[in-house]
Amino acid sequence: MAIVGEVEHPYVPRDLKLPGFVPAFLPPSTIVGAYLLASLLAVSIVWIGSGRIHKISKLDRILMCWWIFTGLTHMVLEGYFVFTPDFYKKTTPVYLAEVWKEYSKGDSRYAARDSGVVSIEGVTVVLEGPFCLLTLFAIATKKSYRYVIQLAISLGQLYGTIVYFLTSYLDGDNFAASWFYYYAYYVLANAFWVLIPTAISVHCWKKICEAIKDQDLKKTKTS
Amino acid sequence: MAIVGEVEHPYVPRDLKLPGFVPAFLPPSTIVGAYLLASLLAVSIVWIGSGRIHKISKLDRILMCWWIFTGLTHMVLEGYFVFTPDFYKKTTPVYLAEVWKEYSKGDSRYAARDSGVVSIEGVTVVLEGPFCLLTLFAIATKKSYRYVIQLAISLGQLYGTIVYFLTSYLDGDNFAASWFYYYAYYVLANAFWVLIPTAISVHCWKKICEAIKDQDLKKTKTS
Repeated sequence: MAIVGEVEHPYVPRDLKLPGFVPAFLPPSTIVGAYLLASLLAVSIVWIGSGRIHKISKLDRILMCWWIFTGLTHMVLEGYFVFTPDFYKKTTPVYLAEVWKEYSKGDSRYAARDSGVVSIEGVTVVLEGPFCLLTLFAIATKKSYRYVIQLAISLGQLYGTIVYFLTSYLDGDNFAASWFYYYAYYVLANAFWVLIPTAISVHCWKKICEAIKDQDLKKTKTS
Repeated sequence: MAIVGEVEHPYVPRDLKLPGFVPAFLPPSTIVGAYLLASLLAVSIVWIGSGRIHKISKLDRILMCWWIFTGLTHMVLEGYFVFTPDFYKKTTPVYLAEVWKEYSKGDSRYAARDSGVVSIEGVTVVLEGPFCLLTLFAIATKKSYRYVIQLAISLGQLYGTIVYFLTSYLDGDNFAASWFYYYAYYVLANAFWVLIPTAISVHCWKKICEAIKDQDLKKTKTS
């Protein structure tokens, strides 16, 4: 198929240049639905599998579900974005390219390959992603680093999301194709990576402080 | 004094537009010297003061020196930058404006007010700065959160520095006025905020794991 002239992209700002842009093949409902279904499948497997672990709390099982979900999102979805600068040129319906063609409606900086977005996503994919999977293992086997690793990743996710929002704000906050996409993709989807890491950080912070307090008391007694 | 026409700035890229730029008044040696001297003063006060704390280790005293140094750097130097977008226009020798006129020779994104740099500095100033001072207090009074707060700030500093370097790399790494400024300011000065937070993170990570291990053992015994 020969592409004659430039195909118009659906993103904002309208003057964004995306030479070679090819529109998405799949409808938004299919793209979002497949992500949610695949995530539900992964979460279900972890939920069922974790039920067989000896003496594990329900909270830890829920945390394991979160870590598989966020870890796979980082490594698969965001991983594809980081290493595929030309995703918007894909002339065949590659699912992961479709995801970013769709998400760019909420934040065109993804298609524009904004250096801030790529940097944050780079850290998320290369460092946080693999550590999320390590966390699954750490919780399942009650490793002594299970709290500190969850805190470290959660703080990283929070830092990344804050800088992600701040850079957009400072650059004019005009990257969404419509109010719907602004709220559905840019605000709502990212809100999960503010609320859940905050809750996990508070939880782990408390657990760590309790353990240090116990140790301090023990040392005071023995000294 | 009337400024006729545009004064040429010393920054790279040469086509960077800085309308109203006023050259630095102080020589680089004075600017850097004053920073080092003021830091040495603050560190000395904390070193001497911390010596009077009951049963404090030398390591904790060294850490307190780092936290006062990095905390004041964040709050005073970087704080001025974040809240003074027009620092390069200052027509009088305001010391803190001189600092950023000078540092911009190593990274002109400061003068250009790059959104990535401003966002990272914003988080550093507003969140990390005050927490550095809280850490001083936490170490001095042996609070149970003393390790977790040091880890949280150090990871934040690391995250910020990584994204700071990554965005520059992705944007072409052409923001230094010369190789000297590139290595002296951009590489060397920032290297401290890679090496020291890494060392502190490892230290605190280990301390936390030991405490959790102890607690796990205790729980296994009593259950």
